[in-house]
Amino acid sequence: MRSLLSDELDDQLDKVQTDIAASQIPIIILFEGGSGRVISRVINELDRNLEPRGINYFHPDVTGGEATAFAEIMKATPGKGEISLYDRSWYSLAVEYCNGDDRVMEAQIEAINSFERYLLDNGTFIIKIAFRMSNDDMNEYLKEYRPHTSIHNTFLSVNHVDRVKFRAVMPQILEGTDTKRAPWDIIDVKGVQETVEKTAETIIKRMKVCLKNAWTKSDCRTIKCCFPNPRKDLELDQDASDYNDRMDELSEELERLQILLAASGRTLVLGFEGWDAAGKGGAIKHICHALNPRGYKVARVKAPTQEDNEHTYLWRFARSMPDAGHITIFDRTWYGRMMVEPIEGFCTEEEYQRSAEEINGFEKVLTIHGTILIKFWLDIDKETQLQRFNDRKNDPLKQWKLTDEDWRNREKWDVYEKYIDTMISSTNTPYAPWIAVPANNKKAARVWIMESVVDRLKAELE
Amino acid sequence: MRSLLSDELDDQLDKVQTDIAASQIPIIILFEGGSGRVISRVINELDRNLEPRGINYFHPDVTGGEATAFAEIMKATPGKGEISLYDRSWYSLAVEYCNGDDRVMEAQIEAINSFERYLLDNGTFIIKIAFRMSNDDMNEYLKEYRPHTSIHNTFLSVNHVDRVKFRAVMPQILEGTDTKRAPWDIIDVKGVQETVEKTAETIIKRMKVCLKNAWTKSDCRTIKCCFPNPRKDLELDQDASDYNDRMDELSEELERLQILLAASGRTLVLGFEGWDAAGKGGAIKHICHALNPRGYKVARVKAPTQEDNEHTYLWRFARSMPDAGHITIFDRTWYGRMMVEPIEGFCTEEEYQRSAEEINGFEKVLTIHGTILIKFWLDIDKETQLQRFNDRKNDPLKQWKLTDEDWRNREKWDVYEKYIDTMISSTNTPYAPWIAVPANNKKAARVWIMESVVDRLKAELE
Repeated sequence: MRSLLSDELDDQLDKVQTDIAASQIPIIILFEGGSGRVISRVINELDRNLEPRGINYFHPDVTGGEATAFAEIMKATPGKGEISLYDRSWYSLAVEYCNGDDRVMEAQIEAINSFERYLLDNGTFIIKIAFRMSNDDMNEYLKEYRPHTSIHNTFLSVNHVDRVKFRAVMPQILEGTDTKRAPWDIIDVKGVQETVEKTAETIIKRMKVCLKNAWTKSDCRTIKCCFPNPRKDLELDQDASDYNDRMDELSEELERLQILLAASGRTLVLGFEGWDAAGKGGAIKHICHALNPRGYKVARVKAPTQEDNEHTYLWRFARSMPDAGHITIFDRTWYGRMMVEPIEGFCTEEEYQRSAEEINGFEKVLTIHGTILIKFWLDIDKETQLQRFNDRKNDPLKQWKLTDEDWRNREKWDVYEKYIDTMISSTNTPYAPWIAVPANNKKAARVWIMESVVDRLKAELE
Repeated sequence: MRSLLSDELDDQLDKVQTDIAASQIPIIILFEGGSGRVISRVINELDRNLEPRGINYFHPDVTGGEATAFAEIMKATPGKGEISLYDRSWYSLAVEYCNGDDRVMEAQIEAINSFERYLLDNGTFIIKIAFRMSNDDMNEYLKEYRPHTSIHNTFLSVNHVDRVKFRAVMPQILEGTDTKRAPWDIIDVKGVQETVEKTAETIIKRMKVCLKNAWTKSDCRTIKCCFPNPRKDLELDQDASDYNDRMDELSEELERLQILLAASGRTLVLGFEGWDAAGKGGAIKHICHALNPRGYKVARVKAPTQEDNEHTYLWRFARSMPDAGHITIFDRTWYGRMMVEPIEGFCTEEEYQRSAEEINGFEKVLTIHGTILIKFWLDIDKETQLQRFNDRKNDPLKQWKLTDEDWRNREKWDVYEKYIDTMISSTNTPYAPWIAVPANNKKAARVWIMESVVDRLKAELE
């Protein structure tokens, strides 16, 4: 296995990689370019010179459906001490999505910059390499980069990216995403050896920048409460006299809409937040009952594991995102970042102040690629909560549901309320709206939720 | 949401489920039957009466390729305190595989019994429910079980199992797998309500059996060294004079064979074990270099996480099994169970004595469904290891590779050797053979490994 790099370059790469490993900084090295074959070949050659432990290779497979591709990309982001090599990335996904409309392109660029800012601010360094070649050169060089085989229709060689489209839109995307902390390195493709050398030099150069740690500093940001808050003036007591009939109707509708969703290949994400004992569990159960179990899963959010903590904080939620045509129901969500985490000191004030913008960015990327996202806040008043706590305390079969923590949280009701209103007012975006659910009456709450889901699915799918 | 169960039955189910949750025993409830629609409907009705926390629903999707279906099934096995509902299971997979040849059916039955014994012995309780109905009844009842929709071609409703084939082979499979510890409960399908009631009664009855804990006792088993041991008389010093040319040839061959594998939809698993400093890392790197990175991943086996420990011990390896057409290279494997675990006391003597049979069963199921599995033992002598340890100690860039544990393991060389020979002699099966690799000369070892992979892939794929 003869390396294409000089001994000197190989030593430098070895040295900087050892320093990076010691620093435990997660690193993304992403490769983009008109030809998948060039990218694969360069990665494969470089592989000889990289110490493989802690390196993960990723190639986005858009055949699984566009709506799932971003979650896959996010799941592949590196943990502490890891390097993720992206053989194509969120940029190829953006190219796919461009349709000639400038506003679409701008939205894509904004979404990308927001995602990269999230990664950088949360400690992940990004190296972006674009391989550039003229059309004539490409046809010439592809001979050198081509493997000696006759079968070209497997997932190994199928190019998911349209070369012409890529060349047409990529310059503008490059320009719009060439940021100070995550600039592009553009490499003109020549023969294999020269290209591999230039790539190695670029990685060494950028890893040295990474080790200086200056990139971690971002502009201060603060939460902006710029959206309407549907909790305000919500009448918590609602009538549920037609409960049984209405639930039967809505269940039948939902059953039908789930089939439309499955056929569409889009995905549905329902996020449930609410006061303790507001009825999240029961509401989820009633939705599930109307659904075909083959098409949904319930993600119950617990304390983060060690693996979770070695990644950026939204990573663990990306792992539970639905497959194409499927539904994930989150029993508690990533909004812990805007409630329990700042209140209990599990994140810093600076991290909290960034969170709304980061979460809006996360939800934006999910939704522009086809995920339908609805967030529920189940609202009850303090008296109702007390009554339900006492009911649980007195029922042997329900006692396990009530913990000391529930009582402690109850004491902080006013603090929580402040954070909840800030959370809703800063993240109630048009693309991922909050539904405030009056839940003093559990049955009325269930109807309210089912109606919201059915109405939204009708609007999106019919 | 009106339950189909009487209050009494509902209370009983609630009570036994609470006891099961307190016991933390992982439980599988699997459903089989001629009609997927009946199964889905019953599960959905039952869902109202089950406390959803800790319940996971699973439906095997064989469209991803048969070779991956078993790993998916294994990944869905429950951890401590969890219940996994299987809407179809390894039985439907077995039905799919039957081809009229009695030996194939017998092999399937043996593989199933071995897998269930593994689950039971390692603390997972299994409830098996088969829905039985005549052909006439089926057509009658399906009307009642049918959802009110017109789209029938999504993953929600497509039945992966051929009904006629199922009815033809299932009786014999039922008979062969109706074991004392995991018997079948057969339920004659009537109207929805009656069927749901009978199913609830069955689950209650079986969960009570589970809580008595008598099922955990299995017959004592001991490791049987019944296969040839290729380590014996292996000449560890080998010549590598034609190294460069041979590696170039073999790499080109492997590149070509990877494409055949991708096109076949089968999977390749390479497991690497060997003495510390035997050259596993380098050998893996050289194989990877010949491969298209889109089609392989390297699974580096570290200490089990808490989540791993809450499952049976082979679960974490199932998680890293390849997708259809892909390759996983394991850097250390499940054979820790037969070396470090018994030596360091991480498993009991009884668990160790069961391990060979369990692992053979695991590998058997993988391979009968199309996985190509090769296991490498990299063999060096004690002097070579000492020399390599010293080389590492003296090289600043390699020092991190050498730990105190390596020196401690070296002191136990003779103990390890005994366990290694037992491991190979008891698991060197025809379907998942060990390749003993003479590795005193690293280059010769790499050629030996590449040749083994290339020869095996040629035999399997050409």
